[in-house]
Amino acid sequence: MDSPRKALVLLSGGIDSTTCTVMACREFGPENVLALSLIYGQKHAKEIAAAREVTKYLGIKDHIIHQLPDIFQGGGSTLIDKDRPNPETTYEELRKSKGVSPTYVPFRNANLLSVATTISLVKGADTIFYGAHAEDARNWAYPDCTPEFNGAMANAIYIGSYMKVRLLTPLQWLTKSEVVALGKKIGTPFELTWSCYNGSEKACGVCPTCMGRLHAFDENGLRDPIDYETIIQPSLQK
Amino acid sequence: MDSPRKALVLLSGGIDSTTCTVMACREFGPENVLALSLIYGQKHAKEIAAAREVTKYLGIKDHIIHQLPDIFQGGGSTLIDKDRPNPETTYEELRKSKGVSPTYVPFRNANLLSVATTISLVKGADTIFYGAHAEDARNWAYPDCTPEFNGAMANAIYIGSYMKVRLLTPLQWLTKSEVVALGKKIGTPFELTWSCYNGSEKACGVCPTCMGRLHAFDENGLRDPIDYETIIQPSLQK
Repeated sequence: MDSPRKALVLLSGGIDSTTCTVMACREFGPENVLALSLIYGQKHAKEIAAAREVTKYLGIKDHIIHQLPDIFQGGGSTLIDKDRPNPETTYEELRKSKGVSPTYVPFRNANLLSVATTISLVKGADTIFYGAHAEDARNWAYPDCTPEFNGAMANAIYIGSYMKVRLLTPLQWLTKSEVVALGKKIGTPFELTWSCYNGSEKACGVCPTCMGRLHAFDENGLRDPIDYETIIQPSLQK
Repeated sequence: MDSPRKALVLLSGGIDSTTCTVMACREFGPENVLALSLIYGQKHAKEIAAAREVTKYLGIKDHIIHQLPDIFQGGGSTLIDKDRPNPETTYEELRKSKGVSPTYVPFRNANLLSVATTISLVKGADTIFYGAHAEDARNWAYPDCTPEFNGAMANAIYIGSYMKVRLLTPLQWLTKSEVVALGKKIGTPFELTWSCYNGSEKACGVCPTCMGRLHAFDENGLRDPIDYETIIQPSLQK
């Protein structure tokens, strides 16, 4: 008998990658899903603990965690550099100013995907789930989340792996609100996820990813189940 | 005044990447060239020492060395796995058997190129030199050296870096003999390079890369200046 197909999910512990993980478990079965979480110097490394809770909840046995070399420091990202606080505004506002997004981590996602492909080959997974979504890509907020980048990486992965591994980006055309709607439908454990760029005890509520998340729940008429330090627009979290 | 353009070279310390480094120095000036060498679990990590000698010789001040996470172990590559000896045959022979090349390190080159792009962005380099050549690509010996892969990665790098970094593969259409001819012409310090997959004191002379190297010098009517343990075809090293 052929051994079952395996999938690897890049799991940060946020809503998007957790929703991808639920999708992978539904398609492959949790026993055939590997979760991969990477430490790259992010201030919010506590997302790894969230990823751990998610894998436990979903029954994924194989959760691989690696530390990348210290190459992102000094690259100007507010997610990493200690002297640069994360912005307190929405992605919508951030996208109005041209140039490099302050939260962009230089070429991070290609590093994550390359490690993911190597581990897929070593462990025999043929599919990588990667949770980039449409708002990550909009106006080049994150160039390494765009359909153009995803397509190029999908080609590089397929060719460079002897056509053994394919990249799936099932959220590529969904807004954050649509990801929340999908997650609600398929059972994403939102209460276990962590999105905030600041690694404090509670989610700050004011960084771009907190505000985007709150807005996405609000658009679905849902309450985000996690706790926030501050809620700027009280309408968002009744 | 604009600051001068900078290049980053992926420098393993072998003939191909050393020739790329000479090309980068000629185009950008050694003061504007960063060399990057990566340790990924290769048995022949002594190539890093060769890379160091090459940078000293060429007057490159900025030689960056990083260790990748331990992800390649167990992937079946004879360059890495201790229980798998490197083959003692030519690439030509190896290519006759289909499937994955025993010396292929799973998706290594995308990992190297991703780190290279991150460092280019952090350090302000706009060009990456990568020494994949035509024999690496022939018959899928190394899928992550093919024009198809290089093109896909070039796109991913350009898009994912906000169009700040371009990938150059100037040896892509040259055979190993043509690389040696080019290196001879532009002054590659062959005597400082290291190619052998086995990390012994002298180059073994019998692994695919030793044999390919000896053959390439022979085709140019040149003597390879480094020392070998064994020379199978004495005609190759008079």
